[in-house]
Amino acid sequence: MQVHKAVITAAAPKQNTLPLQQLVDRNGETKTALQLIVEETLSAGIDEICVVIRPGDQEAYEQAAGTHLASIQFVEQPEPRGYADAIYQAKSFVGDAPFLHLVGDHLYLSASDIPCAKQLIKIAHEFDCSVSAVQSTRENKLPYFGIVSGPHLPRRDDLYEVEAVVEKPTPTYAEQELVTPGLRAGHYLGFFGMHVLTAEAMTSIEQLLAERADDKPSLSDALAMLTSRQRYLAYRLQGSRYNLGVTYGLLIAQLAIGLSGRDRDRILTEMVELLATRAEGNAAQ
Amino acid sequence: MQVHKAVITAAAPKQNTLPLQQLVDRNGETKTALQLIVEETLSAGIDEICVVIRPGDQEAYEQAAGTHLASIQFVEQPEPRGYADAIYQAKSFVGDAPFLHLVGDHLYLSASDIPCAKQLIKIAHEFDCSVSAVQSTRENKLPYFGIVSGPHLPRRDDLYEVEAVVEKPTPTYAEQELVTPGLRAGHYLGFFGMHVLTAEAMTSIEQLLAERADDKPSLSDALAMLTSRQRYLAYRLQGSRYNLGVTYGLLIAQLAIGLSGRDRDRILTEMVELLATRAEGNAAQ
Repeated sequence: MQVHKAVITAAAPKQNTLPLQQLVDRNGETKTALQLIVEETLSAGIDEICVVIRPGDQEAYEQAAGTHLASIQFVEQPEPRGYADAIYQAKSFVGDAPFLHLVGDHLYLSASDIPCAKQLIKIAHEFDCSVSAVQSTRENKLPYFGIVSGPHLPRRDDLYEVEAVVEKPTPTYAEQELVTPGLRAGHYLGFFGMHVLTAEAMTSIEQLLAERADDKPSLSDALAMLTSRQRYLAYRLQGSRYNLGVTYGLLIAQLAIGLSGRDRDRILTEMVELLATRAEGNAAQ
Repeated sequence: MQVHKAVITAAAPKQNTLPLQQLVDRNGETKTALQLIVEETLSAGIDEICVVIRPGDQEAYEQAAGTHLASIQFVEQPEPRGYADAIYQAKSFVGDAPFLHLVGDHLYLSASDIPCAKQLIKIAHEFDCSVSAVQSTRENKLPYFGIVSGPHLPRRDDLYEVEAVVEKPTPTYAEQELVTPGLRAGHYLGFFGMHVLTAEAMTSIEQLLAERADDKPSLSDALAMLTSRQRYLAYRLQGSRYNLGVTYGLLIAQLAIGLSGRDRDRILTEMVELLATRAEGNAAQ
């Protein structure tokens, strides 16, 4: 399977300003979150990118895209009908081709020399099917992610045959139905916010939207449908994802990027200085 | 002197997206930088606020203002003619009244229970003249700030009669002309990004703009003019300013706010976890 196209979703009402936020990348350059996500995509060898946005957001996004604007086309999600519907807006952009999908409110940090998106595409290429990147996710983070479960492949404890997909399960449900062998106790396979999806996955989305026309189905719901139709893998890649949409999400992502980059020592120094100043301030009060 | 009005400048071409950036305040609430600056102003008892913006930015700023929109009026700076010109756009808003002026790319963190703006207004009220907030600023930060010098008032080593104002002086010039008694060696009185200005200060701005019509004069140039006309003080208030416009400016401001607020322990925990993870990642490579 060759992947030449990417779809980035950024149309959720409360998350639509996150890709416009400014961060400093590993090389000390100030960029928007959108630029960082687009660069993750480009680094995986993809240069046709569709960004799904809210009506009215295009101008701000064009500015935030900076020099990458030429690689991007924008598609609006006319109504806030949820995550699966947002991806479905890119149907005519992707056609029958497999595509990389990233969420616009996450940043990704590889723990190896290979960017996260490139790691994932390599697996999709090798196994020729839909693959979701996942990360071992602690029970207390279940309310934020889609969770998958299934057996791992022989001699590959980083690759799983997905048998179940549940959006934001309760701890009780997860403990009864989603335990995955090989992970630490109380840990589950949580979505990383990065997927390679086939045309069949898009067909599952389409059918789901037709069946639940008065609802806002999630991507998890569509991928649960996909498990009974086509091989679908989950891949625990070498890296971390940072959800910008939670409180302090931007701070934690920026610290993680900064501490793994060129300016690590400078940031450590600033952290120590701030701690010293605040301690002084507290003592003086 | 009673101060009822405030002018926030946010029209500089490269800084105009900074007030739109998201931060988490001391109480754990996610807000835009604009909201935080407006709240600083409101906490000083001022509720008539004029924000000077670039043409075309009003819609984004209205969204970023959130619940404070009713207190704000927007004025555009038609051409990017610099800082003094930006303030001058608020001439008809302020009329002949003194006003608080804040820059839109700084955040302020009080080291006492009294917000920075309120501390400054108290001094303006007491001494009935223009007052700039200043902070002891190390030599290596001179390229970022306007610098003032002058003798301190009898028995008040936090208050200075300003005799000189120079925008971004060189270290050599500062060492020869701007040394202020009572500060540590290599430290100068740098602008805090917060001023109370009288009608006479606005007149100085007006004259300066007329004299240097083909230039982009700074506020420092206008305040240098003011020193020969009217009493003008500098006040070393109890607090710190964070310039969002420098690399890692948002990160450092967010850390400073977070470490002084409700979620201090949570942020310390996240910092330690990140340091542990990154150390692990580095060791594994």
